[in-house]
Amino acid sequence: MNETSQHQAPLDDALVGKVKQWIRDAQVDELKILIDHLHPADVAALMERLKRLEQNAIFDLLEPETSGDVLMELEEPHREDVLESLDTDTISKIVDELPSDEAADLVGELDEEVAREVLESTPEESRREVEDLLRYDEETAGGIMALEVARIHENNTVSEAQAELRAIHREVEDIHTLFVVDDVGRLKGIVKPIDLILNSPNTPVSQIMNTELISVPPEMDQEEAAAVAMKYDLVSLPVVAENGALLGRITIDDILDVVEEEAHEDISFMAGTGDEEVSERSALKVTRERIPWLMIGLFGGLVAAYVMSHFETAISHAVALAFFVPVVMGMAGNIAIQCSSIIVRGLATGDLVMSDILRQLWKELRVAITNGIILGIVLFLVVSLWYSDWELGMVIGATMWAVILVATATGTLIPLALKVIGIDPAVAMGPFITSLNDVIGISIYLGFASLYFRYFQ
Amino acid sequence: MNETSQHQAPLDDALVGKVKQWIRDAQVDELKILIDHLHPADVAALMERLKRLEQNAIFDLLEPETSGDVLMELEEPHREDVLESLDTDTISKIVDELPSDEAADLVGELDEEVAREVLESTPEESRREVEDLLRYDEETAGGIMALEVARIHENNTVSEAQAELRAIHREVEDIHTLFVVDDVGRLKGIVKPIDLILNSPNTPVSQIMNTELISVPPEMDQEEAAAVAMKYDLVSLPVVAENGALLGRITIDDILDVVEEEAHEDISFMAGTGDEEVSERSALKVTRERIPWLMIGLFGGLVAAYVMSHFETAISHAVALAFFVPVVMGMAGNIAIQCSSIIVRGLATGDLVMSDILRQLWKELRVAITNGIILGIVLFLVVSLWYSDWELGMVIGATMWAVILVATATGTLIPLALKVIGIDPAVAMGPFITSLNDVIGISIYLGFASLYFRYFQ
Repeated sequence: MNETSQHQAPLDDALVGKVKQWIRDAQVDELKILIDHLHPADVAALMERLKRLEQNAIFDLLEPETSGDVLMELEEPHREDVLESLDTDTISKIVDELPSDEAADLVGELDEEVAREVLESTPEESRREVEDLLRYDEETAGGIMALEVARIHENNTVSEAQAELRAIHREVEDIHTLFVVDDVGRLKGIVKPIDLILNSPNTPVSQIMNTELISVPPEMDQEEAAAVAMKYDLVSLPVVAENGALLGRITIDDILDVVEEEAHEDISFMAGTGDEEVSERSALKVTRERIPWLMIGLFGGLVAAYVMSHFETAISHAVALAFFVPVVMGMAGNIAIQCSSIIVRGLATGDLVMSDILRQLWKELRVAITNGIILGIVLFLVVSLWYSDWELGMVIGATMWAVILVATATGTLIPLALKVIGIDPAVAMGPFITSLNDVIGISIYLGFASLYFRYFQ
Repeated sequence: MNETSQHQAPLDDALVGKVKQWIRDAQVDELKILIDHLHPADVAALMERLKRLEQNAIFDLLEPETSGDVLMELEEPHREDVLESLDTDTISKIVDELPSDEAADLVGELDEEVAREVLESTPEESRREVEDLLRYDEETAGGIMALEVARIHENNTVSEAQAELRAIHREVEDIHTLFVVDDVGRLKGIVKPIDLILNSPNTPVSQIMNTELISVPPEMDQEEAAAVAMKYDLVSLPVVAENGALLGRITIDDILDVVEEEAHEDISFMAGTGDEEVSERSALKVTRERIPWLMIGLFGGLVAAYVMSHFETAISHAVALAFFVPVVMGMAGNIAIQCSSIIVRGLATGDLVMSDILRQLWKELRVAITNGIILGIVLFLVVSLWYSDWELGMVIGATMWAVILVATATGTLIPLALKVIGIDPAVAMGPFITSLNDVIGISIYLGFASLYFRYFQ
């Protein structure tokens, strides 16, 4: 490997073009040499730049040991495409080769019928592991753990532990932590590989193990489990049953995936893009993910239109009232999103605990009052000068203040309420909360304004 | 440690209450016993639930070795509070005890004057390390790397490497990877601690080292570096200078922090909450972070009001036109956010490369056409039935279609344009893009509608 390739393998347009050429010309040898030298993640990245048939040409050239790794590195829509082109026997072989957590993820993604056929032709041991893992909910600690762990008996010495490590290191990938267990498989402590180097061969592992155990139950939500691993900077998080038995481990790369996935989910809720992946090619699938959110927005807009129609008289007397509807709407939406996103992220990262809510509310209220005063005054000045009508300015400025208070209340309380009743509060960050606040904001604005003009003019 | 505490230390209201009581009664012994038994992350979590003076009471009880860890686990606003109460000598001691990357972060957070004083009283070696690291931009690989790495000479044998490990393991935390270097410090390969157990003592490390090196240059943006570590599932990412010299390493927990930070940043841009932290207590600081985004929204709203005022005649003839302004505005904003968030996230995660842009644009266009047809027809039907006026329905439905196409174009092209000119495209996900689309949407809508009614009625 030359000097420059130390920094990430280059996957430039030239290489992609060459690969396409080789596939067209069926230059299998050149392709094979290239692919065998690439990291599975790079093969996957390459495949994602190719057309479906080209992808299959590459995938067919992979060795059985690496084809599973490449498959799991592919973005979901591409993985689906490749899977469709494989027969069940090939998928079974891949399932058998993969670590248990990835094997279970793969089988879980298949159609029910295909999954059954694949499992039927998967060797006994792998099949049982996959079936065990599929029993846990996908988004729990159990759903993301791997069953392959480096177990050492508490009566072992350092040299016995070393021997055990030699025996299992081919089966268990990336051993960063050795788990010390008793006769019935209960987790007693942890030892790092480096501890087996630093201590003399005859030392009992029970003497050198770290007994300040941090573990999670298999039912724990994956986001919570990720927060535990992050809080304590764990590279390998043990999953332990209620009776203390070690069930499996969650490695840090899976924790990273969870963190990315949950951030992606929050952003999707905010943007109203559902389960859409960037790499999705089918416009129809994208439309299907996005249209429900747009329908919520459309419905909210129509309700707002209905509300406005009730103030037809006021608006036809002072058309200027209608001009400031966008201002009120925009402000109500922005304020509500600011409040709700802080609450939702705080709850997700654990930085905000339910017992802290009153303080949070009080803070938001103070912010709302300050923001209301500043923005209300700016709006009062602009409207008063524009229309040379300080009464209109006062009405609109004061209404803005009321709208800001109400948007703060809904933006803060709705995600909290959703959390309490067990719905993901992230739904309160997107089109739903803006639509709701559009309607409330417009009602307050026009209600207040028409009352004022009815009684005081 | 009992069975139940295996699952995360409990930090419930009862414990917090007890701690507050102990602080009030100056029961130092009880506090000391509790704190010495808690993980630094838990001490930090406990402190975040306390008032400022209570925080100081706890912090003063910490041992010098752990006080730095606790300090770095605190959320920023709390860390600031604690730092304000410490004299420069104490901070210097903490800086000396911390790993180089955290020491540099800490010094970087201090006011310039305080930082200089602190560095003056920090021992030579630590001071030089901090000064070296502070030379790199905060958000680059160099800015987040630690200088403490486990280095082994390429001429060493396994047993020599083991001896080296014994010599350095107290200085370098969490050794997951040993870096093999040549005489002039150039990175030649990597070895895992487990490799030193699996191979016989006389094997040269150069024979067992992995030479398929993946490293990053110190200038690389931290988000890109995180993407590299994630792509190749690295627990420890070496940072290498242009001449091949090993400079430092980025550990996976720092990568996790980057991923969280970048997601937080994107969400902050979308929500318009700036640098705000959930744990921020000062309403004034929160207001200061949020108000610029609200001003953008207010300005956009006022421009929209100005646009609407130009269609005063049309609106006073058919007030119903004004009623559908919220529908158009909401839709334009939602569509633009959907498109821009997909682009921004795709660029951030590397799932979208610039050479793929034409395909992405074409996909968005097809989605827009489909969405436009569906939503346009729904709107046409609702308006036609509501007002028994199919002409109004047709105008509003057709306008909606045009608005969707334009919002798709701006939502897709603006983040790409920002990327090209070197501005973080994430700014295109929030109030800025919605405000812009509000104005454009309203202009198209009212322009089209008033033209229609002027010439055809």
